[in-house]
Amino acid sequence: MQDHIESTRRRGYSRRVPDTDAVVDLLAGLAYGELSAFDRLADDARMAPTLDGRAHMAGMARVELGHYERLAERLTSLGAVPSEAMIPFVEPLERFHKLTEPSTWLEGVVKAYVGDGLAADFYREVAVFADEPTRALIDEVLVDAGRAEFAVQEVAAALAADPSQGGRLALFARRLVGEAISQTQHVLAERDALLKLFVEGAGDVSGIAKLITRITEQHEARMTYLGLKN
Amino acid sequence: MQDHIESTRRRGYSRRVPDTDAVVDLLAGLAYGELSAFDRLADDARMAPTLDGRAHMAGMARVELGHYERLAERLTSLGAVPSEAMIPFVEPLERFHKLTEPSTWLEGVVKAYVGDGLAADFYREVAVFADEPTRALIDEVLVDAGRAEFAVQEVAAALAADPSQGGRLALFARRLVGEAISQTQHVLAERDALLKLFVEGAGDVSGIAKLITRITEQHEARMTYLGLKN
Repeated sequence: MQDHIESTRRRGYSRRVPDTDAVVDLLAGLAYGELSAFDRLADDARMAPTLDGRAHMAGMARVELGHYERLAERLTSLGAVPSEAMIPFVEPLERFHKLTEPSTWLEGVVKAYVGDGLAADFYREVAVFADEPTRALIDEVLVDAGRAEFAVQEVAAALAADPSQGGRLALFARRLVGEAISQTQHVLAERDALLKLFVEGAGDVSGIAKLITRITEQHEARMTYLGLKN
Repeated sequence: MQDHIESTRRRGYSRRVPDTDAVVDLLAGLAYGELSAFDRLADDARMAPTLDGRAHMAGMARVELGHYERLAERLTSLGAVPSEAMIPFVEPLERFHKLTEPSTWLEGVVKAYVGDGLAADFYREVAVFADEPTRALIDEVLVDAGRAEFAVQEVAAALAADPSQGGRLALFARRLVGEAISQTQHVLAERDALLKLFVEGAGDVSGIAKLITRITEQHEARMTYLGLKN
């Protein structure tokens, strides 16, 4: 992942000093993403078939809250009020969660890995266009923290017991992608500074297309890793 | 609180080495209490009227999860499997939470302070009867962590805006006490080793009565602190 970001940077995207509004938006969107991820993971943890599984997912929720706090601190140091800066992102993120609410423990596990992975890839891509401290913070809060191993273990055990579950999980993962794209477009259409950062950073339409291709490839890699790719 | 525990100890309760079954039960009951408190606080945080309030209650949930992990480690070091040891406590604690589910943000705040305070007092009292490392760990995980100040601030602001809410909150707090007593009795009736630790530790019926009086007084003090005592 780090190599990938380095190569993205070397590709020579313009590194003009980004607009503060755009950076605040970027951090605020991510901050609310972390706060709502805490909320969703804590909720989904209840579906765990074992107390160990429940404690594990609760632990993931806790990690997200720690990230939220780091981002809120950074927003404050930039002169923003986190609770106000996050407001534009509440509705699209809540809509995303509502439309991708897991109905089983396994869907929750897939969402924790595939959904958060997708968001992380997008954020890492956009962070490359921001200033250095912002980029460093975003890279830091987007660590995977063993989520992949946990997801593979849970999904592999479930598929071994009942291979027919694979199709349904793959479908659920597709819904995650679709809704993530849809809500991201919605946010970019509403936030001028953020859209500008994104478009100017990517350089041109072909830059945006390449960025989307990279994110898609990484999503496919995760699906393969989970054994959900046919 | 610390003074109070010291004086309880000086009162000369018998300090025989407690049965490991009882200590495992004590730690497991508390561990599930912390895991379910994480779950409930994360859930109740959603009712927060502000994103700051929500992040604050999410932070309380995180503290509980950290305590859970300390207790689970201790259970493991005693040769117990935490997820198995907690099983007898799942049903009574879930019943407690179901019967005391807050229907408003303020009820959630009162539960976080009054309900957890009640449970903490009870655990501190019983911990005095256990071995020294167990007692030290229980004292450590039962820190208040600024919960009182937060509760007072939220409740005071709400009562200033609408004093008529006080009666309803006081009633809710009474339900917390009633259900806590009821579920504790239920647990003690089912767990022989724990009951033995409790009864032998308290010494006699008068010892138990004094313990209940102390817990009640501390509950009343919290209600006064919140401005909910008439």
